[in-house]
Order: sequence, then structure tokens, then C-alpha cells
Amino acid sequence: MNHPSASAPCCGVGASGGIDVHAHVIPEHFPHYIGSRLPSDWPSMAPAHACHRHVMIAGKVYRTVSDRCWDVGRRLEDLPGMGLAIQVISPMPELLSYWMQAADAQQLLRYLNDQIAAMADRSGGRLLGLGAVPLQDLDLAIRELDYVVHTLGMPGIEIGSNINGLPIGDPALDPFFEACAAWNVAVFVHALRPAGMDRLVGPAALQQVLAYPTDVGLAAASAITGGLLARRPDLRIAFSHGGGVLASLLPRLEQGWKTFPALRDTLHESPTQAARRFFYDTLVFDEPALRHLVHCFGAGQLMIGTDYPFNFHDAQPTLRIEHALADPGERSALRHGNARRFLGLP
Amino acid sequence: MNHPSASAPCCGVGASGGIDVHAHVIPEHFPHYIGSRLPSDWPSMAPAHACHRHVMIAGKVYRTVSDRCWDVGRRLEDLPGMGLAIQVISPMPELLSYWMQAADAQQLLRYLNDQIAAMADRSGGRLLGLGAVPLQDLDLAIRELDYVVHTLGMPGIEIGSNINGLPIGDPALDPFFEACAAWNVAVFVHALRPAGMDRLVGPAALQQVLAYPTDVGLAAASAITGGLLARRPDLRIAFSHGGGVLASLLPRLEQGWKTFPALRDTLHESPTQAARRFFYDTLVFDEPALRHLVHCFGAGQLMIGTDYPFNFHDAQPTLRIEHALADPGERSALRHGNARRFLGLP
Repeated sequence: MNHPSASAPCCGVGASGGIDVHAHVIPEHFPHYIGSRLPSDWPSMAPAHACHRHVMIAGKVYRTVSDRCWDVGRRLEDLPGMGLAIQVISPMPELLSYWMQAADAQQLLRYLNDQIAAMADRSGGRLLGLGAVPLQDLDLAIRELDYVVHTLGMPGIEIGSNINGLPIGDPALDPFFEACAAWNVAVFVHALRPAGMDRLVGPAALQQVLAYPTDVGLAAASAITGGLLARRPDLRIAFSHGGGVLASLLPRLEQGWKTFPALRDTLHESPTQAARRFFYDTLVFDEPALRHLVHCFGAGQLMIGTDYPFNFHDAQPTLRIEHALADPGERSALRHGNARRFLGLP
Repeated sequence: MNHPSASAPCCGVGASGGIDVHAHVIPEHFPHYIGSRLPSDWPSMAPAHACHRHVMIAGKVYRTVSDRCWDVGRRLEDLPGMGLAIQVISPMPELLSYWMQAADAQQLLRYLNDQIAAMADRSGGRLLGLGAVPLQDLDLAIRELDYVVHTLGMPGIEIGSNINGLPIGDPALDPFFEACAAWNVAVFVHALRPAGMDRLVGPAALQQVLAYPTDVGLAAASAITGGLLARRPDLRIAFSHGGGVLASLLPRLEQGWKTFPALRDTLHESPTQAARRFFYDTLVFDEPALRHLVHCFGAGQLMIGTDYPFNFHDAQPTLRIEHALADPGERSALRHGNARRFLGLP
């Protein structure tokens, strides 16, 4: 169990080393489906080249991945080279399975949650887990959240940037966020099944490259315009990929809020103020962009995110912070202080 | 006719005053439809309060607008207060009518093109027109472009960020861009019928506030990943709203280009280099955001854009440039030099 208050090493190991809040897990095996109607997109593994496997979804190779996805030892070996003391591990987002029958998704996510908790347990406090819940059914999601938090002792949860198209700022999701706030759960929002796919011209990788940051930016904007933190001021919520396109949208949203009574009358806090209460990861691959995020959101809101161990990941997140920022306090906040606050670590 | 080479005042008036490339026209009247099947979304005008009219589309008030949309005198009176010597006027984007039968759209756009040319003619060279063409039919579009450029003498054209969902970087639009390059036509891309609408939580104004910059950013990205300027290196093309979300997408696109062979093998120029050959307006309502655009795209690529005369417009574009930039050469480039290059003015 990796409950932070019960786990001395997570606070002791490398107190000044980096904390990466955005890294993913794929289990070595997927479970056999238990039930009578096997979902067509139930994942499975197929052998690939040395140390690699194919994640198979709906009869196709979804992604070919290395054993770093499930092997705790190899992962821990890689952390120091990236300047990291602690890594927060969450499911590969496509496994969130919001599009399955809720009970089927819960079966898969329960397995993932147990796997992630076991990896954290074997890590000597250097890996912390984020769980996943079937948000297509709020009651079931809150029950699984209860298990993730109170049985497995995880500090937080990963959710998609939309739930089958429902923006995460939609008030329909309020009961879930109410539970997260009440149980002190850190919420990490990751891009998933993004909007804008029909605006892409080029190879399939553009989904990750362009549509992911678009969707997570729109998700963050929906949390602002939907007044999420006005209703749940204690909720700790973070957005992947540096908040995606939010940094570009925010000044225009601020001006729109000043211009349109329909926005001004419903939002009592300015969009910029609201945005500066969210957390974001640093996964923007560019020092000037990172500096701009610090300007937009505040040096107290950014945390390392790498997308490790996928090939499109940031291998030098702490060096990037050193290059982007001169102030030692800001560097330290981005390296680990903000992540500790987000995760509720001592 | 406002052909730049035939129009002395446009070069003489306020050579150091600002040029606004992003301002819109709605005609005082819409024409009667000539034909047998009146399109359901053919626009009309209805009276409103003093100096205002309702633009009616499909039986509803699309927008209530002031006579500044069509009155040349009132518009010219407003220019000096905004620090502007010249304003480039283009149709309100919703009038581009890509969703109508092409011949019907061409009927409406021909009227708009003639109205805009007449406004420019009456302005003493202080207004320059951008025309519009029915891009749902490339042959008809190129014929109307011929009229806009060679009969009306306009320096450029306004197009939507997508054509009924087709991203402007799609190679299917190549014949149109080939004509633009051959005829030396400046292309101004404006957000229209945007992606991401189902990710918004809040009032209808969020279409303009959030989805417009999203769509124009994806449009610019599609022009990069579709290799538009690799095929048409002489094309002068500009994106509205500061390129929308492109500034947030670009570093990730650059890293994706380095990471994914499928991208690297098709794009021989880096995305950042490609982006620095587009033009953008300055319509971001924020000095730090404007400085960030200068960093991302280069001080030689940004031009004033205001969205005048709509209520969500930038009333002090030249002051914003003064506050954002210290370098006199950069200020001057953004105020008018880049716009002159984009428009092909002497």
C-alpha cells in the first residue's frame, strides 16, 4: 500500500530530487474477461521484439511498448538519469475504457488499480500510483474511487479530458469531484479521445501531437467556464501537457469574460485567477514555452511531467527547468514542491 | 478600385500609422435572392435600436450590429483613435456561406465583394478590401478570385479556417492556393464554424471566445503538416487571432516531428521554420501573449488585427504593441511594415 502518510520512503528518498506526476503504466498481461459478453475493445498483449509487446485493441496493434511500462526495476533504474526521485504512475489513458459497459470497464480498471498499487508497493516509495475509475457511471466510479483511496491508499486519480465527449467542466460530473474533494484526492486530467481529429492533415501520430493538447486545453477551459473550483474550492486538479492550448486561450477568455455579460454574470472569479488555482505539468518540450506557462499560471502551479516510458517523452525534465528558470525557489517548486502540494505529500 | 499600385493614397496616408488587417464588414442591406430555391440561411437585415440592425439568419438574430459595419465615414472617424492609418476590411466570416449551394453562395459573395470594393473606393485609400469566394466549389472559387483580384483590384482574400470541415491544409485545396500564389493574392484565414464546440461549457459566446482560436490554430497546424508552403513557397498567408492555439501547439509539434518518422519523412522543413513563414494578427488582448507570439513566430510575421467593429474587438492595438515591445524596429514592423509585405503594398 502506498498511502503517503504510511510510507516513509516516499518522503525521505531524494527530498530535493524531482517528482514526475505524468508517467504511464501498461501491465505485463491483461486479465481474461470474466463475463458473457467480451467487449470488442478489451485489450490483450501479443509478443513483439525483445523486451517489447504489442498492446492489441479491437484486433489491431494499438501501440508497441517496452517492458519499462510494467517492470519496476527498469523504471527505477531510469529515474536518476532524468533527475527524478519519485515518479507518479497512471494508466495509459486509452485503458480508461469510458466507452465500455461500465461494469466491464470497472473489471479492467480494478485490475489496473491493483497492478499499479503493487508496482508502487515494490518501489520503496519511489513510485506513487494514480488510479482510474469508470466515469461513464458516476455511482460505480465513486465506489471504485473509494477502493483506490481507502483500500489501496493511492493519493490520486487519473481521468480523461472528456468522458465520451462530456467536457470535464460539465456540472453533471459534480458528484465525482465532490467525492474527490471530500476524500482529499488529487485529480490528474489527461488528454483522451480528443476533439479536433477531423482538422488534422497527416499521420496518425498527430492525434497525440496536436489533438491531445487541444483537448486537454479545452477541458481546462471547461473547468473554468463551468465554475468547477468555485463549487469545489478545495479540489486539487492538474492538467497534462502543460494545460495544452489553455495558455493560448486564456487571455482571450479573460477578455471575453470582461466583454460578454453572459460570461461575466456566471463567473465570479476571473478566468485568469481560476486558471492559477489549477496545477499543470511541464510537458511542453521547450524552455520559452515553459517560461510562458510560469507567467500564465504561476510558478506555484507547475510540476514535472514526462510521459515516460513512451517514445514521445521528455527525457530531461529537470534540466529543462534549470534552463528555463533562474530563480532557485521557482526551480525547486517546479521540481518537487508543487507536486508535493498537489499530491498531498508532507 | 483599390488596387494598391493604382491607389496613391493608401501608400501616402499615415505611412507610419498602423495597418489593421482584421476588421469586418456587414453590408447595410442584403440582396434579394435571385433564383428558385431560397437557401434557408440566406441572410437579411431587420431594424434594431438607433444605428443598429439585426443580422437575421435562418429566422433568428445571428448578431446585432452597428452602422460602423457598413458606414465608411463612421469607420474612418474611428481609425485615428485606434492609431490606425489603414484598415483592411473583410466579410463577417459567417457570411462566407460555404454550406450553401455554391452558385447561391457565389451570388451572395459577389454582392459582398462589390460592396467591399465600393467601401474601399469611397475611403480615399484608407480602407483596403479582402474578398471572398465559394470554396465549396474550387472552379467557381477560382473564377470569383479572378473577379476579386483582376476586376475589383483587391490585394487579397478572406477564407475560413475550414471549408465545411475540410482543414485548409488539405491538399484538395491546392488549385485554389496555386491561383492565389500565381496572382499574388494575400490570403487571410479567419476562424469559422469551429471544431471543439462539444467541449464548451457555458454561454454561446464561447464559440468566439474559445472555439475560434482553437480552430484557427488547428488550421495553421494543418497548413504546416500538409506542407502548404513547401508546395507554394510564394504564397502569403495569415492567420487570425494571433494564430489561435498554434503558439501552444508548436513546440509539441516540433518535438513530434523529431520523434515520429511518419512526420519527419513527409515534412522536410521543421514545423517551427514553417510557422515562421506564415503571418498572424496581433489579436490576443494581452501584452505577454503578444511578446510570446513574437518569440514563436518572429517580429517580421505579426500584423495588427482588431476585429473592429464588433464588441469583442481590440480598441487599442497600437498601444498594446508599444507596451509589449521596446524595439522601435519591431514596433514599426508590427504596426505596418509586416502588413505592407503581407498585402504586397509598396
